[in-house]
Amino acid sequence: VSAGPPRIIVDWGTSSFRAYRFGESGEIVETHRAAAGILSVASGGFAEVLQREIGGWLAGGAEVSLSGMITSRNGWVETPYVSTPATLADLRDGAVRRQEGDLSLSFLPGVSQAAPVPDVMRGEEIQVFGSFARDADGIAVLPGTHSKWVRVERGRITGFRSFMTGEVFAVLTAHSILGRLIPQAEMPFNPQAFAEGVAMAARAGSAGVLGDIFSARSGVLLGALSAEHIRDRLSGLLIGHEIAGATSLGWTSGDVMLIGDPALCARYGTALDASGITSRVAPPDAAVEGFRRLDALK
Amino acid sequence: VSAGPPRIIVDWGTSSFRAYRFGESGEIVETHRAAAGILSVASGGFAEVLQREIGGWLAGGAEVSLSGMITSRNGWVETPYVSTPATLADLRDGAVRRQEGDLSLSFLPGVSQAAPVPDVMRGEEIQVFGSFARDADGIAVLPGTHSKWVRVERGRITGFRSFMTGEVFAVLTAHSILGRLIPQAEMPFNPQAFAEGVAMAARAGSAGVLGDIFSARSGVLLGALSAEHIRDRLSGLLIGHEIAGATSLGWTSGDVMLIGDPALCARYGTALDASGITSRVAPPDAAVEGFRRLDALK
Repeated sequence: VSAGPPRIIVDWGTSSFRAYRFGESGEIVETHRAAAGILSVASGGFAEVLQREIGGWLAGGAEVSLSGMITSRNGWVETPYVSTPATLADLRDGAVRRQEGDLSLSFLPGVSQAAPVPDVMRGEEIQVFGSFARDADGIAVLPGTHSKWVRVERGRITGFRSFMTGEVFAVLTAHSILGRLIPQAEMPFNPQAFAEGVAMAARAGSAGVLGDIFSARSGVLLGALSAEHIRDRLSGLLIGHEIAGATSLGWTSGDVMLIGDPALCARYGTALDASGITSRVAPPDAAVEGFRRLDALK
Repeated sequence: VSAGPPRIIVDWGTSSFRAYRFGESGEIVETHRAAAGILSVASGGFAEVLQREIGGWLAGGAEVSLSGMITSRNGWVETPYVSTPATLADLRDGAVRRQEGDLSLSFLPGVSQAAPVPDVMRGEEIQVFGSFARDADGIAVLPGTHSKWVRVERGRITGFRSFMTGEVFAVLTAHSILGRLIPQAEMPFNPQAFAEGVAMAARAGSAGVLGDIFSARSGVLLGALSAEHIRDRLSGLLIGHEIAGATSLGWTSGDVMLIGDPALCARYGTALDASGITSRVAPPDAAVEGFRRLDALK
């Protein structure tokens, strides 16, 4: 005798699909991850992909909450943004519901800010709410393609900034002259090359991102850097400059909470530490905890 | 009765080929430009391209001096770098000569610096020597794919920094999420969008390049920026950050000399002016004047 239809959440981003099925007492009973990000799905094909990935969970009806880029203009259902300052209740109130057969779908809104500069996020907000206590203050850092630094005050998201660190790294290594010297073979992560990049970004003699990155090429041409270490030097340089940018905004005065992929969080933790900024890593599955808290509001 | 074989110089870069034929009294009697940059030439095909482009000038023998990326590892003949501090005489002494039939080829060296950060150039140095008087002091800015800021002291190149401004602009508009919102149709340059980008980079609230560029997307999503103006906003942001980087290095205390493409120099002049930095534009054909002075040394 079930208490109701199965409760499912889907964290559906640009490059990944993560689904969780809850049991009656709120515990996760099943998890499914796939490389079925929205960029890999043709427009209009989202319902089909949902069935393909987790159809077994959906038979007989289910309540499915979705967050991430699946709620964007290029996703399934575009939801409006909730403006900062944003609470978990604002997310609940801004959700867009849609009935598809016996599926009750609920698409969460993203969060926007208009000033001091326009900025937007979709998917990170539920992870932030899952990582901070209801009345907490702090700074969250969500590293990735478009890293987010998020200010939380008394449990509300009051401001944030996006940094294109991950995407700039990807396009520079794939499409710029910096990538041409990188050996094809996968190399193990070189902590020293990474640390040197972080240090260079923090130095008084830094020329800024646009200047510093060229040294990843000229250093190789002049024998000061091994071509095998270009990627890690560049990674350190870009993350170091992200931290420098956040620092110039005054966002690194306290310790920061890292949320996301453990390996990437560890890399950011190392760079923050080298910059004199303390950090801790949020418990895993922050989005799941955020949805739990959202459900608890109801 | 000729005084000797024709004198020809070729400024052969990554994306362009520019050749000049001198008359007996040192005046330019013919100019040829083509989109035959070294990236468009198969390895080993350089002699053939030279014949195709200016074969008519070469019959019966000629003295040809070449500078630019044609002297790099990916070019025709790789020349060593001359280290800073570098003089015009150092370029002459570092040239690599090669006889090809009745052609006397002379490939100029590039210039390198080892500290404070490794950096290299090939082709800009002869333009710098062509733009500054023999004992002049000053800062030269050569905007482009890899913009160079060059310090000249008593006519010597004593230091320089490269900024990947042009290439970062190209890869971001072609390969990043910022490019996806840009309309396909060519739009006229929008000075206001450019100026806003420059101003954003100079503001105290700047998050650095990695942060500021995302606003070219979020601004459009939130209605604060027209998609038609993304390119010019991004151009202003990147040039503004190049200037901010050079300023943090202390390279903008005097006025600066802009060398290169007139339209690009004008754009940099506008951005420098908005940043409170005076500039002037060097006479055109700086490379030709540099070679003239090189010849005068002999």
